[in-house]
Amino acid sequence: MQTAPLIALLTDFGLADPYVGQMKSVLLSAAPGVPVVDISHGVAMGDVVQASFFLAATLPWLPPGAVVVAVVDPGVGTSRRAVVVELDSRLVVGPDNGLLTLPLARGQGVRAYDVTPRVAPASATFHGRDVFAPLAARLAMGESVSALGYVFSPDELIVLPGLTATRQGDVVVARVLSVDGFGNVMTSCDDAAFGGWWGRAALVVPVSRELVRAVTYADIGSGEVGLLAGSQGYLELAVGGGSAAAVLGLSRGDRLELFLPSGVA
Amino acid sequence: MQTAPLIALLTDFGLADPYVGQMKSVLLSAAPGVPVVDISHGVAMGDVVQASFFLAATLPWLPPGAVVVAVVDPGVGTSRRAVVVELDSRLVVGPDNGLLTLPLARGQGVRAYDVTPRVAPASATFHGRDVFAPLAARLAMGESVSALGYVFSPDELIVLPGLTATRQGDVVVARVLSVDGFGNVMTSCDDAAFGGWWGRAALVVPVSRELVRAVTYADIGSGEVGLLAGSQGYLELAVGGGSAAAVLGLSRGDRLELFLPSGVA
Amino acid sequence: MQTAPLIALLTDFGLADPYVGQMKSVLLSAAPGVPVVDISHGVAMGDVVQASFFLAATLPWLPPGAVVVAVVDPGVGTSRRAVVVELDSRLVVGPDNGLLTLPLARGQGVRAYDVTPRVAPASATFHGRDVFAPLAARLAMGESVSALGYVFSPDELIVLPGLTATRQGDVVVARVLSVDGFGNVMTSCDDAAFGGWWGRAALVVPVSRELVRAVTYADIGSGEVGLLAGSQGYLELAVGGGSAAAVLGLSRGDRLELFLPSGVA
Repeated sequence: MQTAPLIALLTDFGLADPYVGQMKSVLLSAAPGVPVVDISHGVAMGDVVQASFFLAATLPWLPPGAVVVAVVDPGVGTSRRAVVVELDSRLVVGPDNGLLTLPLARGQGVRAYDVTPRVAPASATFHGRDVFAPLAARLAMGESVSALGYVFSPDELIVLPGLTATRQGDVVVARVLSVDGFGNVMTSCDDAAFGGWWGRAALVVPVSRELVRAVTYADIGSGEVGLLAGSQGYLELAVGGGSAAAVLGLSRGDRLELFLPSGVA
Repeated sequence: MQTAPLIALLTDFGLADPYVGQMKSVLLSAAPGVPVVDISHGVAMGDVVQASFFLAATLPWLPPGAVVVAVVDPGVGTSRRAVVVELDSRLVVGPDNGLLTLPLARGQGVRAYDVTPRVAPASATFHGRDVFAPLAARLAMGESVSALGYVFSPDELIVLPGLTATRQGDVVVARVLSVDGFGNVMTSCDDAAFGGWWGRAALVVPVSRELVRAVTYADIGSGEVGLLAGSQGYLELAVGGGSAAAVLGLSRGDRLELFLPSGVA
Repeated sequence: MQTAPLIALLTDFGLADPYVGQMKSVLLSAAPGVPVVDISHGVAMGDVVQASFFLAATLPWLPPGAVVVAVVDPGVGTSRRAVVVELDSRLVVGPDNGLLTLPLARGQGVRAYDVTPRVAPASATFHGRDVFAPLAARLAMGESVSALGYVFSPDELIVLPGLTATRQGDVVVARVLSVDGFGNVMTSCDDAAFGGWWGRAALVVPVSRELVRAVTYADIGSGEVGLLAGSQGYLELAVGGGSAAAVLGLSRGDRLELFLPSGVA
């Protein structure tokens, strides 16, 4: 039994309340010596889509064997399933509510385990601390996930519709997964799928704008709107010296369309 | 001499300034290998009541032997005492200004030590970094608290009035200890004292509202107001799909009254 | 090869996005066992001056051998140099864009290394994660900085003008380096240079105000404005029971002038 290299946390709890500290205290008590890393606790309240994006963007940077506790859980206390999902040698512990939609669209070697029976006797309102953190600690200490739940088909995991950008003729329909602190707009165009064509794309919805093909933010002149294959694995819209979200009027969840001239792969 | 399983921090310093980082640097230098956990640095500025609530709610989740540095200290530089208080096998280091009011109302095995003489030669304006963190590090490395200060009666610790809910006939008078990031209202009704009767309570101040008896947030219908024995050890008011604080017009420190029909224990 | 006692992070990334978590994941993967401490991720976006102040104020509290990753980098992707600078036995890794201005004004034993060639093949938009964190991990694991870059004269490091307060006759011209969460105004008057004279100073710009000579915040009466040698190594303006920034109308970057009667050293 090998201990995990780290436990990573992703929630919408914020940092003002003592909720994250209580989770970490449980983790450090039950899995002493395993470092705990915050992915974010600033997911917009109940925004499972943004959380799914943060998870997909961060999983490739976690070392193999890492255990993630992902709790953005508007349905806490309802009958939704509690799951552990193995993707690319990382384990994600949390509610089965669509959080894994974007990671699953990319993941290799996926296995799913139902751990709902572990939930029953626990706290009614704070599963992050009372259910998922203890489970994560046991996994981090080397317990086998197959001893904690029963395997089921990953195809039965809840998947949210509309999170993957789609091409329809000359138009790519996508969604704003998140807006970062710099105002950069994270689209649902996965680099792996759309990385090839973006050099000649233009924005057509919500507004018509030419897009500078950019490799770095510095390639985008002041006031220009650029499109780049960002650091998070999805195409980003950015504005030179400003906020793309403000300039384009885009917010989390908004629909956007990119135009791509016929014949471009 | 056994080292502490962890050092936990509670302040109103916020996370934008480098203050918390400087405290952690002092702790990691003087107590290498002891993990440091943040309870919160988002206590409202100078709000000793909210800090006392965070502390009472979190202490049970810390492993025995944990050392807490609790610094919400509007009186830094005045003559208030510096103390180490042992409660239920945890040590709390900080100013004697009422921070421990709520933990003391619950705590078992309380011992108090005056460590004020340790403060004298230190920094005038940042006791968190220059006094309390070095003390906490020594305690975390296994030094005995009795070697660092002299024992005094816990009855002499500063206690803030009005923090404990009281029943007067059919009415329970309580206070809002905190409002969490989801808008849930944390009342001063300790579960241990009031957990039995709340099934038939109604809110009468600041507004008259029927209360749904809820076990989980999901039990509260949209727009309904529910009362539940929350995860923090105190009764909470919550609104289905919304913010109880906004719906009820309640803020930190506000007074509230619950009505309980005669004959209910 | 000795490992570093800790790695400290300073950025303007905020904590809502997963950027800091991804940096930490890289650090923990490549430098397992080395604790990571946040100085701040709340530097105002692109404010190299505030970051320089945070760095100068915090470096003395880091243990010798500490490695700092400092990334406030409006010019990411441009041709600015990537550097490792040794000051007082700590190593700072980051862009050469003026971040080190204030530490250099105080530092002893400065050596500068150009590590730009390490940057070339990496991510175009997120050097914090893809360039500086991996470099910091190697340094933290004991690799010699001279193996990672070539030495150059510290005099060639970018230094921002106007960050050091200057005395012109009876007047000291200074700048607001930062305003902390309590509203205290951090001036560019380094204690070491200006600590002797401030007992009789008055504020003349932006407004004329007598200043109370204070040792602690508690020395400043309600509504009074005090001047003290703060915990961060620079003179601070503070208001009793209020925000000095609000009362004086001062913000980050603002110019201020202090009057000092003739003959005061």
